[in-house]
Amino acid sequence: MQNKLLYGAEYYIEYMPYDRLSEDIRLMKEAGINCIRVGESTWSSMEPQEGVFDFSELRRVLDACSEAGISVIAATPTYAIPGWLAQKYPDILAETSSGRLLYGKRQTMDITNADYLFYAERIIRKLMEHTAGHPAVIGYQLDNETGYYDAAGEHIQQLFTVHLRQEFHGDLNRLNQALGLSYWSNRIDSWENIPDLRGAVNESLRAEFDAFRRAEVTRFLAMQAKIVREYLREDQFITHNLSLFWNGDTYGFNPDVDEREIGKIVDVCGIDIYHPAQDDLTGMEIAFGGDLARSVKRKNYLVLETQAQGFPGWLPYDGQLRLQAFSHFASGADMVEYWPWHSIHNGPETFWKGVLGHDLKVNDTYRTVKQIGQELSMLSGHLHHLKKKNRTAFVICSRSRKGLDYFPMNISAGEDKSIGYNDVLKKIYRQLYFLNVECDFVWPDSESLEEYDLLIVPALYVAEDIFTKRLSDYVRKGGHLLGTFKTAFADKYLKVYHDGHPHGLRDCFGMSYSNFTLSRGAALLGNGTAVKKEGRRVTGFMELLEPADAQVLASYDHPAWKKYAAVTENVYGSGTAWYLGCDCEDGVIRDLLIYILSACGLYKEGQEEFPVIVRRGKNMLDKEIRYFLNFSGKEQRVHPDWQDGLELLSQTRSGKGTDLLLPPWGVKIIETDGNS
Amino acid sequence: MQNKLLYGAEYYIEYMPYDRLSEDIRLMKEAGINCIRVGESTWSSMEPQEGVFDFSELRRVLDACSEAGISVIAATPTYAIPGWLAQKYPDILAETSSGRLLYGKRQTMDITNADYLFYAERIIRKLMEHTAGHPAVIGYQLDNETGYYDAAGEHIQQLFTVHLRQEFHGDLNRLNQALGLSYWSNRIDSWENIPDLRGAVNESLRAEFDAFRRAEVTRFLAMQAKIVREYLREDQFITHNLSLFWNGDTYGFNPDVDEREIGKIVDVCGIDIYHPAQDDLTGMEIAFGGDLARSVKRKNYLVLETQAQGFPGWLPYDGQLRLQAFSHFASGADMVEYWPWHSIHNGPETFWKGVLGHDLKVNDTYRTVKQIGQELSMLSGHLHHLKKKNRTAFVICSRSRKGLDYFPMNISAGEDKSIGYNDVLKKIYRQLYFLNVECDFVWPDSESLEEYDLLIVPALYVAEDIFTKRLSDYVRKGGHLLGTFKTAFADKYLKVYHDGHPHGLRDCFGMSYSNFTLSRGAALLGNGTAVKKEGRRVTGFMELLEPADAQVLASYDHPAWKKYAAVTENVYGSGTAWYLGCDCEDGVIRDLLIYILSACGLYKEGQEEFPVIVRRGKNMLDKEIRYFLNFSGKEQRVHPDWQDGLELLSQTRSGKGTDLLLPPWGVKIIETDGNS
Amino acid sequence: MQNKLLYGAEYYIEYMPYDRLSEDIRLMKEAGINCIRVGESTWSSMEPQEGVFDFSELRRVLDACSEAGISVIAATPTYAIPGWLAQKYPDILAETSSGRLLYGKRQTMDITNADYLFYAERIIRKLMEHTAGHPAVIGYQLDNETGYYDAAGEHIQQLFTVHLRQEFHGDLNRLNQALGLSYWSNRIDSWENIPDLRGAVNESLRAEFDAFRRAEVTRFLAMQAKIVREYLREDQFITHNLSLFWNGDTYGFNPDVDEREIGKIVDVCGIDIYHPAQDDLTGMEIAFGGDLARSVKRKNYLVLETQAQGFPGWLPYDGQLRLQAFSHFASGADMVEYWPWHSIHNGPETFWKGVLGHDLKVNDTYRTVKQIGQELSMLSGHLHHLKKKNRTAFVICSRSRKGLDYFPMNISAGEDKSIGYNDVLKKIYRQLYFLNVECDFVWPDSESLEEYDLLIVPALYVAEDIFTKRLSDYVRKGGHLLGTFKTAFADKYLKVYHDGHPHGLRDCFGMSYSNFTLSRGAALLGNGTAVKKEGRRVTGFMELLEPADAQVLASYDHPAWKKYAAVTENVYGSGTAWYLGCDCEDGVIRDLLIYILSACGLYKEGQEEFPVIVRRGKNMLDKEIRYFLNFSGKEQRVHPDWQDGLELLSQTRSGKGTDLLLPPWGVKIIETDGNS
Repeated sequence: MQNKLLYGAEYYIEYMPYDRLSEDIRLMKEAGINCIRVGESTWSSMEPQEGVFDFSELRRVLDACSEAGISVIAATPTYAIPGWLAQKYPDILAETSSGRLLYGKRQTMDITNADYLFYAERIIRKLMEHTAGHPAVIGYQLDNETGYYDAAGEHIQQLFTVHLRQEFHGDLNRLNQALGLSYWSNRIDSWENIPDLRGAVNESLRAEFDAFRRAEVTRFLAMQAKIVREYLREDQFITHNLSLFWNGDTYGFNPDVDEREIGKIVDVCGIDIYHPAQDDLTGMEIAFGGDLARSVKRKNYLVLETQAQGFPGWLPYDGQLRLQAFSHFASGADMVEYWPWHSIHNGPETFWKGVLGHDLKVNDTYRTVKQIGQELSMLSGHLHHLKKKNRTAFVICSRSRKGLDYFPMNISAGEDKSIGYNDVLKKIYRQLYFLNVECDFVWPDSESLEEYDLLIVPALYVAEDIFTKRLSDYVRKGGHLLGTFKTAFADKYLKVYHDGHPHGLRDCFGMSYSNFTLSRGAALLGNGTAVKKEGRRVTGFMELLEPADAQVLASYDHPAWKKYAAVTENVYGSGTAWYLGCDCEDGVIRDLLIYILSACGLYKEGQEEFPVIVRRGKNMLDKEIRYFLNFSGKEQRVHPDWQDGLELLSQTRSGKGTDLLLPPWGVKIIETDGNS
Repeated sequence: MQNKLLYGAEYYIEYMPYDRLSEDIRLMKEAGINCIRVGESTWSSMEPQEGVFDFSELRRVLDACSEAGISVIAATPTYAIPGWLAQKYPDILAETSSGRLLYGKRQTMDITNADYLFYAERIIRKLMEHTAGHPAVIGYQLDNETGYYDAAGEHIQQLFTVHLRQEFHGDLNRLNQALGLSYWSNRIDSWENIPDLRGAVNESLRAEFDAFRRAEVTRFLAMQAKIVREYLREDQFITHNLSLFWNGDTYGFNPDVDEREIGKIVDVCGIDIYHPAQDDLTGMEIAFGGDLARSVKRKNYLVLETQAQGFPGWLPYDGQLRLQAFSHFASGADMVEYWPWHSIHNGPETFWKGVLGHDLKVNDTYRTVKQIGQELSMLSGHLHHLKKKNRTAFVICSRSRKGLDYFPMNISAGEDKSIGYNDVLKKIYRQLYFLNVECDFVWPDSESLEEYDLLIVPALYVAEDIFTKRLSDYVRKGGHLLGTFKTAFADKYLKVYHDGHPHGLRDCFGMSYSNFTLSRGAALLGNGTAVKKEGRRVTGFMELLEPADAQVLASYDHPAWKKYAAVTENVYGSGTAWYLGCDCEDGVIRDLLIYILSACGLYKEGQEEFPVIVRRGKNMLDKEIRYFLNFSGKEQRVHPDWQDGLELLSQTRSGKGTDLLLPPWGVKIIETDGNS
Repeated sequence: MQNKLLYGAEYYIEYMPYDRLSEDIRLMKEAGINCIRVGESTWSSMEPQEGVFDFSELRRVLDACSEAGISVIAATPTYAIPGWLAQKYPDILAETSSGRLLYGKRQTMDITNADYLFYAERIIRKLMEHTAGHPAVIGYQLDNETGYYDAAGEHIQQLFTVHLRQEFHGDLNRLNQALGLSYWSNRIDSWENIPDLRGAVNESLRAEFDAFRRAEVTRFLAMQAKIVREYLREDQFITHNLSLFWNGDTYGFNPDVDEREIGKIVDVCGIDIYHPAQDDLTGMEIAFGGDLARSVKRKNYLVLETQAQGFPGWLPYDGQLRLQAFSHFASGADMVEYWPWHSIHNGPETFWKGVLGHDLKVNDTYRTVKQIGQELSMLSGHLHHLKKKNRTAFVICSRSRKGLDYFPMNISAGEDKSIGYNDVLKKIYRQLYFLNVECDFVWPDSESLEEYDLLIVPALYVAEDIFTKRLSDYVRKGGHLLGTFKTAFADKYLKVYHDGHPHGLRDCFGMSYSNFTLSRGAALLGNGTAVKKEGRRVTGFMELLEPADAQVLASYDHPAWKKYAAVTENVYGSGTAWYLGCDCEDGVIRDLLIYILSACGLYKEGQEEFPVIVRRGKNMLDKEIRYFLNFSGKEQRVHPDWQDGLELLSQTRSGKGTDLLLPPWGVKIIETDGNS
């Protein structure tokens, strides 16, 4: 990896209305841009006809960058196929449960199709041949936001059959039992008779198919990595840009990939982060995406894409773009790349604007980029490779994500609305973020699990015995655990456990439940400390907890359910386990978190809160860095309790007793004196 | 039929996570469960591979039941086909207007497909061979909630062509004229040129296709009955579980079956009733479904499925499950079966919970079932085979149901929302139910039509001459009739009558109309008795009635329509006919019903009302039974005006002058002294 | 053309439930109906089997009309094909991006299909042979509301390939560049490899395909015209009924046809106008459709279809039907035809009611028609062929319409809702209509452009250089121009201009912009004259205007955007150009229009306003006609400032100083004394 912060944008020479390469390079250089990304999605420019290759334009970009001292990350162009390829091999286009996809959009292929793989390999090799030796190229991005695109055609189903045989050791009874296929007469009693998955309604079967296809995504990227590594120089790296779940913005985890498995393939984790802006800018999505990317390989990461302007409705207010950039670095990013450099003049992303507007002239956005670029040039040595040592972690899991897609919580409710995995996770994450408690993400089999002071396990619908055992042990030996409703409900195959809930954790939480319902206006009766005595609303799904050893922090204020607990606390061995049994308003989560964090020594009364966001880490000089980020349009005053240091952006001294003034959407960075 | 009330649940040994048959039998026996249902939807367990049959598990259940004295209703498993069958004969899967259905869900087959019928017959015969002789088996259920699943493929279209030729005696001109096919150039002038029905937009043609497919449902069940009867013992019966229209709960009539025709095939009518619960429990759907099932064969019926817990949001409050059970018996049910016994651990119905929760342990629901079971054991002789003699009936009709699906009333309105047949019917039914006036359902060709004091004819869009004549005669000879808007508008083929409306009933109602519009805030100007003078809102569709002999009970309070009547009353011969010309708020219907019922001697001022529901009948001891059902969470006090009797549940005396106290969601049953 | 006003209805003898031709003719004659339309959509009656023709019924109608002195417009029946044709040539049914259309609906064919064209030509020739010589027939309508029905099958794609080769002179690079096909790897580098258009996501390619298909519509109608003209008598005319965009009513321009190109084919322009009614009747849609139809050929036009009763919710209030009829004539119509004569008794339009109701008897609607018919007979010489000389025109464009379909303005907004071309256009048109300023429509290449005092250019997304130059020149030489946001943004192929916006008009408007966003509650800070100082809301999309020479009429009241202008005025040469930079509430548009119209001498303070609508023109007697139309349910008093004249309907004198009383939904027509 480079020994400095990288800053830049995606550059599409292919989409430019006229030749302005030298002008763009000049503007970039002037702005302090030191790294661009090229190539993803331009296969038809590299290979306009079958077997006819043209890397001349790309080479022109590399040469110009080289001369200007700008680095380049080149992406394999495999996520958008040329028309001639689709026409010659129609089977490359994925067949989904709604039929064969038509050519036109990106990400429409069956990534297991042999013809696709043949041509993908060839274009990757050609790209590597033409670029791997170029001095400007510092690394490669494999494909782009890879997924499996709901491909469910004959070929991928055949692969899945092979997978099932292996998974169940050729034992059909085991298959039928594990996936509960007797239901609605869906038994499979011959390997030749696996029905077309596209009509499957058995969520156990579908979830296994999903897991298999997530693994295919990993295999596909591993195949690309293998090819790329044949050509890779020692000083070059491999990355991939993970995408989050898209819901108008990047909302929560993407259920279609196994982030950590992909992390094992690449040298450095990359991620794409798009978020609400203007009055809705909170920095939460930046922190969330950053925490994920950092956690995948437990080291610094690259923001391979983020918005410069984005949608018309996201045009940044004065100060916001700079605040966003430093927020990424505050989370541990080593690079921020805007998408794209120039606003594209046609196509579906015409109104997803870049650094430059459609007029390709210097504008406010560019001017801000330039300011940021200059500050980064100056401060790179102080800010890059920021190390974090967080004491709180969320345990997350792909199978749970998918499980709660299939079984949403408030189904048929008259409740606020149905919620899924990401909703529960983000509801808690948001309050933690607002309280300025930094966290990591871990997986049920992460080695580091026991290192944390507090583990938060939100709606971990799927929990295998080995994990619930581990979690119990963690608490027993002194750990702190916050679990929520819907945790440890089903096994790996989405079969609900039949021995009571939460499965494997009843001792640990000191309670159990077998019933759950929806709130219909129920409120909470709190104990007055962890949960307010009155006035807190349950907003949907609620489990009717029956405490054994646990202490009741809140029960339900509803004539039918008043005998049940809603929130519990249980001392278990040397540790403590809290359980939140219902979907409730944000205030409950906030209060409960403060109560728990205080008990864990992770929260101090009066500490800064949103809209002032504080992020910490240790820099390469072994000094402590504190970012103060003002996510509001009003000036904020921060009362310092830290040791003396230097505010890096203004190069002014700062210390105890002197208030820090943050302008609207402003940022300050303190490097404390002395090593930490 | 059995000489006692039957009580139980659907039992799926096939879906159990482990072998616990003896435990389940023990729990059931202890709870007073005396009848379970088995088999529907488990074809792939009975015939895991083509021609390989396995009834061992089912036999184990039968044997265990036999030993425990529990009866069994076995269902033919034909409504969910095994995967191998779909794979061998892809044409079995129905082709609908949205394409061929994919394998996975239940109820996806073309029930006229010859291959399906061959395999269906074979599995039914195997089932009968293995079970008909078993002492535990008291009856058989044919298939399950049978419909035609929108099948519209080539084969069923060919059958339809044959049907059309017969219906129109091979006369194409008659066909074109009757179905109005000249419209949009859709004429058919050769029997070879009947176009693909899947694209048909002519509602007359579509409605005939629907009627034909409803008849195919009947034929399919008749075919099953014929096979089953070959094996049936004299002491065994045949039933089928009709389903109501599903709209989140069981809402109104199912437009895809002819209930009464199916009734002719079975020995006893069965029905599935699911309904809102918790604060939304009114008992209305229980009464509605019960009245239908009882009317189909004019005798007692079986509730083959109803919810124990149902959706998470339906978890019953304390008392509700018991109230529901007795409400079924109060409507004339001879059996109540919960669906299912145990909460299933995977698949689409994972969160449709049974008597037992996922933990398969004794829970509150089971404890309530046990209480009910014990009460039923004690009272069966007093409660079973309850006979009713209602004096009010609704006239209903499949073709009208479908007609108003095709021509919804408030189309393109800014009105409350578009309404159909079931909406109009249930709006009136609900008020009648709230007023504690029990009723039957009859069909235009029911023999019993003239037996009733009051016939209610809601939105009977399709009315043939023979029926309107009969209705007129009924009124003329002293009957009472309440008709609503959209009654007698079109002929059998949905062709609007061209001689004015309501067709064939203008003399009877003493008015006519040729215009109709939507309310746009119009109110009613009532006569002050049947309809309040002011303040009543028209909520959508409104006919502009022009009275001839009729008296105006309400007219429209709108500058443009004030000259038209909205509600009329007409003395016709020795009877009276009322007509409600517009969709209006519930209060209008309530007041009008009280006015009409009083005139018919069917209502007494001050009689009990919802939330206290009163149901009556005569038991096998020839004594009068009165159920008092409290559909509220508050205690209710009932002022008795009936003769002395015994409250059966508490075995306490009750009589005139002594108030009856109904606890929240409580029930009391009075058996009056002396024969009625 | 006929020398009188034509008045009538569509007559379907084919759909009549029984033979009542003579009765209908009698009723029509009595009502003053002097022209009916026949034939569209009845191909299967004319040719019930392939090659078997039957015009006997049609001839019966023509003969009866002839005898009664009623004229007939016959329509070619090609827009609804017979079932036998679809069955023999399945490819005739259009293949759209959602698959092959099924037979049943009208307008489902691929109008470029050779088999379809063969049979269409044959039935047209047969129709002409049987009717062209008939004295009753005064003209022919080509097809009916022709479009391209989203046809995108293989054949039309082949034609499109030929078109692309021509359009780009066989130069693939030019194609790729012009349509920006490098984006997402969509380059086409071989004419054999043009991918299936049905999956296309590149809006530039799709817009060109749309334009090509609009041209196919024109070609198809030209082909029909050519055939018809072979038989046409000198005294007969050709017309076609344009349809507007349908959105529950006729809302704005139809993006699927080039109205003006179709206008070149026909002798007289026809149009179908359906509009909201009852309390929602404003006359706006009548004026809008009329202004379009009149502008297409710059002469009088025919209203070939309009509602008599329409939907149930449109049943006219007393007076409305008459008001509507005279509103059409006030806009320059020479004919009004209701659709249909009789309410059809089955099919999808059963509840789209005609002059007669389903009972086919004399009713209120018929009685009103009769009154209108008699007034028209009396006044025809005074009202027909009304000539207008408007001074204001809207510039409209098909490519812009489509462009803003693809790129709606408030995308991903939390704004009022996303708006498109028709929304912007109609928002301004509505205020102009309310202010009683009559206008024409013109196209960018209309010869007459420079004749107008004021040109309004709303959201003209696509603007070619030749047009922006012309517009600039127009202003420079003294013209007045009002442009709005999104004008001159992209070239013909929807490629955004890369030299700044508004392209080619920055000097003319004296401002430019490169950024735009969404309002999020922004308000306007007006100058107090053209725009109120405070309280005016921006309702969505907003451009951030940077004035050069322009004067700021309003800027944005939002902390982030206060430095930008929202509305500008620029004196350019001898003319003035105004620019409205944001979507805003109606009050802004109204005030701005009054300001601009006053500046142009097109508005006088105190002039009549909606709900009194005033329309003017010169009649064939060279006298000025003024219509006063009361679009309200309340009496209106008009203060005349015109010279003395005769109120034609009442035949009473009228003049300066004498108030004109308009009854609710009433109409008065003044013919001023002396020639104008």
